[in-house]
Amino acid sequence: MSAEPPVPETNVLAIASHVVSGNVGNKIAVFTLQSMGCEVAALNTVYFSNHTGYKQWKGARLSAQEITDLWEGLKQSHLDDFDVMLTGYIPGAAAVDAVGNIGKELRRKWEARGPGGSFFWVLDPVMGDNGRLYVAEDVVPAYKSLIHHADLILPNQFEAELLSGVKISDPASLEKAIRVLHQIYGVPHVVITSVSVPLLGSLPTSATATSPHSPAQTVGTMSVVGSSMTSDRRPRPFKILFPVFDCYFSGTGDMFAALMVVRMREAVVAAAEAAAAQERNEAGSGSGKLGETRSWLSADDVDALDLPLAQAAEKVLASMHEILERTSQGMEAELARRKREREQATGAGADDKTQFLLRTRAAELKLSRHLRCLRDPKVEYKAQKL
Amino acid sequence: MSAEPPVPETNVLAIASHVVSGNVGNKIAVFTLQSMGCEVAALNTVYFSNHTGYKQWKGARLSAQEITDLWEGLKQSHLDDFDVMLTGYIPGAAAVDAVGNIGKELRRKWEARGPGGSFFWVLDPVMGDNGRLYVAEDVVPAYKSLIHHADLILPNQFEAELLSGVKISDPASLEKAIRVLHQIYGVPHVVITSVSVPLLGSLPTSATATSPHSPAQTVGTMSVVGSSMTSDRRPRPFKILFPVFDCYFSGTGDMFAALMVVRMREAVVAAAEAAAAQERNEAGSGSGKLGETRSWLSADDVDALDLPLAQAAEKVLASMHEILERTSQGMEAELARRKREREQATGAGADDKTQFLLRTRAAELKLSRHLRCLRDPKVEYKAQKL
Repeated sequence: MSAEPPVPETNVLAIASHVVSGNVGNKIAVFTLQSMGCEVAALNTVYFSNHTGYKQWKGARLSAQEITDLWEGLKQSHLDDFDVMLTGYIPGAAAVDAVGNIGKELRRKWEARGPGGSFFWVLDPVMGDNGRLYVAEDVVPAYKSLIHHADLILPNQFEAELLSGVKISDPASLEKAIRVLHQIYGVPHVVITSVSVPLLGSLPTSATATSPHSPAQTVGTMSVVGSSMTSDRRPRPFKILFPVFDCYFSGTGDMFAALMVVRMREAVVAAAEAAAAQERNEAGSGSGKLGETRSWLSADDVDALDLPLAQAAEKVLASMHEILERTSQGMEAELARRKREREQATGAGADDKTQFLLRTRAAELKLSRHLRCLRDPKVEYKAQKL
Repeated sequence: MSAEPPVPETNVLAIASHVVSGNVGNKIAVFTLQSMGCEVAALNTVYFSNHTGYKQWKGARLSAQEITDLWEGLKQSHLDDFDVMLTGYIPGAAAVDAVGNIGKELRRKWEARGPGGSFFWVLDPVMGDNGRLYVAEDVVPAYKSLIHHADLILPNQFEAELLSGVKISDPASLEKAIRVLHQIYGVPHVVITSVSVPLLGSLPTSATATSPHSPAQTVGTMSVVGSSMTSDRRPRPFKILFPVFDCYFSGTGDMFAALMVVRMREAVVAAAEAAAAQERNEAGSGSGKLGETRSWLSADDVDALDLPLAQAAEKVLASMHEILERTSQGMEAELARRKREREQATGAGADDKTQFLLRTRAAELKLSRHLRCLRDPKVEYKAQKL
C-alpha cells in the first residue's frame, strides 16, 4: 500500500451523524478522510447507538443551537481555517440553517483573504431515497435555499428530483434536472449518486456476473451522473455505469461523499500541476491554478470526460466497488457465525427480529481491514458521455 | 506500508471523550484502532469543540444515564460482542460507575460462554497528572473500586500513586506501587506510562541529542514501567527508557492506550502461535492458547522481558516516538504559517492569548499523514529489567 497520501495537507470540517456502532455518517466519513491523509474536525449532529436501518436505536440529536455553539467554540480558538467542508445528515430545518450559516461564514472568510486559496463545500442533501422522504418536510426548502452556496452537491436520484423539481425518468429529464441545478441554483458541480434510468445503458454481462475475482453476486447496473458547469452555467454531463450488489448497504452515500472530497482535491491539484507544466513549456498564459479558482471550476474548453469531477468519480466508484465487494463476500459467513454464537449463548435459534438485526449488522461496510481499497483502488468503470 | 493489519479481526468498544477539532480522547483512539484494522464502536462521553488544554471550549458532557442508554441501544440490537474494551476519560464518578457496569457485564457475558475466547479491558484511569487532580475527588474512589475488573490499567505516575496509595520517588517505591496494584487490587497487567524517577537511568546522549534523522529537540529521559503478574500475583516488572521532546502534547495517553490494545493483542496472538508450534514439535502440553486464557496472563516461567506486555510496549513507544517527532518537526513552521495568515487576515500581530492558542494547536498530534508510523514503527527503545 502506498505510504504517501493522495492529497496535500487538507483541513476538513465534517458535519454529519455519529453512531457508536457501525459505519455510516461521520463514523465512516471521518475515518475515510483521515485514512486518506486529511486532518478532520468532526462535528457530530446526532449521537445514536446505531444507524436507523436497524429500526431501533438510542441516543440524541443536537439542537441547532448546540451545533452553533460548537462552531463558536472552534472560532474562539482559531480552529476554523478549513479548506473543505463536508456536510451530511443534519437533523431538522433549523439545524440545516445553522450548518448553512457555518458554510456561508467560511466562504466569506476565504473571500476576504483574496486570491491564493479557496474554500470548497461538498453538500450531501440527505433527505430521502427511493421516493420516500425520511426528514421533516420543511427540510426540503431549507436545502433549496442553501445549495447555491455549495460547490458540489451529491443528491441521490430522489433528492435531485426534490431539489430541481424535475421528475427523472429518462436521459432528457435527467439532463434537465442537472441544468436546473446549474442554471437556477448556480451549483457548480453536481453528482447524482444513484441513477436507475434504464435508458442510460447497462454493463455487459461479463462485468456484472460472478467471476473468480468477484465471487460476490451483482444484480444489474446503476449509474452515477455528474456535471461541472461552464462559465455560462451549461452542463458538462458524464455517466459512470457500475454493477450493483444484491444487498442494501447503509453508509454508501457518506463514504462516497468523503471519497469525493479527497479525489476531487487530488484531481484539481493534478490538473493545476499539469497546467503549470504546460505554461512553463509554452510560456503562455494557461489556465492558472485551478485550486485557487472559485469552486475549482475548469475552463470552458475542458471536455466532460476530462473534468476533475469525472476523474474523481471514477476513483471513488472504484473504491466503493471494492469495499462493497469485500463486505458482500464476508456477509454470509459473518451472519452464520453470529447466529451460531447466539445459539450457543442462548440455547435457542434466532427469531425473525434477531435475524433481521444480525443481517443488518453483517451489511455494515468493512473499511478498517481494507485500507488499500481506499488508497489504491483499481479503476474499472470509466466515465462516458451521457 | 504493509497492507495487512497487525491483528486478526478485533471488535473494540472505545469509551472516551470526543473533540470536534484536534486529536485527543476517542478522536485519536478511534482512528488509531481503525487504521490498525480494528472494528470500533465509539461511545463518546463528552462532545467538546476542542480539548481543555486550550483553556476554553464549548460543548457538553453525557450523563451517566445517557452513557447507559447508548449501551442499552447496542445490546438491544446485538451489537455488544466486543473482544476488547478501552476506556479513557469519563466525566464524573456516576459516569465511571456506569462505564464500570458495562465492563462487568461484558466480562460476565464472556464467562458465560465458557472457554474458547476472552474479553480484555484496557482501562486508562484518567484523573490527573503531575500532582494535580483534574477530575472531581469522588472519581478516585470510583476508579479504586473498579480497577480489579480491568485486565490492563495505564495510569501515569500520579494516577498510579492515587490508586496504590504509594508515593513513587525511587525504584523501591515504584516496585511497591506495582505490587499493590497486582496484589491488593488484582490487576493482571499494569503499565505506568510516564515515570520520572531519576534512579531508573537515562539514555546515552547520542540517543537523545539532535541527529540528522531527528532534528526535533529532545530534553532528557522518561520511562514507561510495566508488569504482568504471575499466578500468585508477583510482579514481573520491566522499564523502557525513551527521550522526551521539548513540548507538551495532549492526547499522548489516549494514543498510547489505543496502540497498546492493538500491540498487546498482536503479541498475545504471536505467543499463542509460537506455543502451538512448539506443542506440535514436542508433542507436549505447552502453554495452550494464551488469547483464550483469562486476562491473557503468561505462564509463570515467562520472563519480564519476554512478556507480550513488554513486547507490545516497545512497539507502542516506537510509534509514539515517531509521531511525536514528526509533530515536533512541523510545529514551528505550522505556527509561523498560521501567525502569518492571521496577520494577513486581521492586519495585526497575534496577541498573547492568540499565540497561546496557535501554539496549542500546532502541538496537536499529527497522525493522518503518518499512518506508516502507526503500522510499521522501528523499535529503538527496548525493555530492560527494572
